[in-house]
Amino acid sequence: MTTEELVQQIRKKQSFLCVGLDTDLTKIPKHLLEGEDPIFAFNKAIIDSTHSYCVAYKPNTAFYEAYGIKGWLALEKTIDYLNSKYPEIFTIADAKRGDIGNTSKRYAEAFFEDLGFDSVTIAPYMGKDSVEPFLEFTDKHTILLVLTSNAGAYDFQTKMVEGKELYKQVLVTSKTYKNSENLMYVVGATKATYLEGIRKIVPDSFLLVPGVGAQGGSLEEVCKYGMTANIGLLVNSSRGIIYASAIDDFAEVAAEKAKELQQQMAQELKKFR
Amino acid sequence: MTTEELVQQIRKKQSFLCVGLDTDLTKIPKHLLEGEDPIFAFNKAIIDSTHSYCVAYKPNTAFYEAYGIKGWLALEKTIDYLNSKYPEIFTIADAKRGDIGNTSKRYAEAFFEDLGFDSVTIAPYMGKDSVEPFLEFTDKHTILLVLTSNAGAYDFQTKMVEGKELYKQVLVTSKTYKNSENLMYVVGATKATYLEGIRKIVPDSFLLVPGVGAQGGSLEEVCKYGMTANIGLLVNSSRGIIYASAIDDFAEVAAEKAKELQQQMAQELKKFR
Repeated sequence: MTTEELVQQIRKKQSFLCVGLDTDLTKIPKHLLEGEDPIFAFNKAIIDSTHSYCVAYKPNTAFYEAYGIKGWLALEKTIDYLNSKYPEIFTIADAKRGDIGNTSKRYAEAFFEDLGFDSVTIAPYMGKDSVEPFLEFTDKHTILLVLTSNAGAYDFQTKMVEGKELYKQVLVTSKTYKNSENLMYVVGATKATYLEGIRKIVPDSFLLVPGVGAQGGSLEEVCKYGMTANIGLLVNSSRGIIYASAIDDFAEVAAEKAKELQQQMAQELKKFR
Repeated sequence: MTTEELVQQIRKKQSFLCVGLDTDLTKIPKHLLEGEDPIFAFNKAIIDSTHSYCVAYKPNTAFYEAYGIKGWLALEKTIDYLNSKYPEIFTIADAKRGDIGNTSKRYAEAFFEDLGFDSVTIAPYMGKDSVEPFLEFTDKHTILLVLTSNAGAYDFQTKMVEGKELYKQVLVTSKTYKNSENLMYVVGATKATYLEGIRKIVPDSFLLVPGVGAQGGSLEEVCKYGMTANIGLLVNSSRGIIYASAIDDFAEVAAEKAKELQQQMAQELKKFR
């Protein structure tokens, strides 16, 4: 999917919501556990009920790997379902991968070719040759971790490196990578005011913003500092939507929660015009 | 496996060799491709022929994920085979994972519990709460990326942060994490002279050293700057061993290459006494 198609979808749905599919067998409704593939059954129900209110889904691969082959199969079924039934949806493998060149190439093949995701999240620590193999897939999107929403972000990301915080160095350096125009960046919503400085370095890039809701970030703040003429934002919510109810009505309640966020987003989109 | 048991194995075998199982269907002998599970067949043959000369095996998860379910199954079979047939061997999932706390916990469960590895490699960018969930498994080992063997290492890892290179800040900061005594560190052999400074910060920790052989690192240099009274080194070789021959004799040739390295290691161990 091109960035233009993503922007069109956002304008049409008046939503830049990404729903995080962090599917956890200890948190999904008990009655699903009796079925053959409870992870996929849960995801399918959530997708069917929320897809009108969001433009992207983001399974975090850790939740699937934790269940071994069963989990990997459920991930495959989920991305296949999204690609066949809702091809307009942008898909993100939240995998936070990164390795030396020939190995990163393998990860890129796994997520872009074998699974068929539109994008994958990448850790920057290993530098240029760990990121560029993903960027070679010019019809896909590589989403680099910049400033994360967790407490540990202050360990290294905000430390000063040659007169600039490390996360800003990551932004600046990443712009020198080959095909860097296909980069998007992860910026946690719990650090929304940092978005002002980030927009000075990447004025037009799409930012994937986790941490709204359960982690305490404010949608209004994120839009105030991060929105661009082309929107430039994908705001993720996981637990606040998918676990809003733990009983039979989980899919409807998830849809209500997604709709609430969509309506707040529609307001923000109006403000910006 | 405890560090003491690993050291005992090293002394007994006179080897601190780790064999990297970066199994690639385009590089393994053609005749194996006709079988049902060529990845596992290749790994099993390599393990059976080299296990006397090494103390650890390190599958890089990217190579398995690239083949989807089939790859993940082969990884499961490989670790099950190692754990049942060669329980004295130290196993490393080279996965370079790292995410916010509740998600890192899932990765830890995937590699330590579901798959049953002794250790896993972790990326440090997201800080404390991305690493500590792994360290909670106090009978396992968490191997933190510090200084990698690739060119991109110079993008961020060697940059000065508050008067110290970032990779040294990672070492210093990681020592403040809960259960940090279970940490090991990845330090690329292509930067062997850096080991002197690293040993000032972590005098006793085990270092996993990739990059000897195909990537150009020198075993002698690594030992000169990195070896401790308790050895403190696991030196990895992947392509130089497993792809030394691409025909029927691949397992025997791999054994010869592993034996060569083991004999060089025995010399280095003698020097140190």
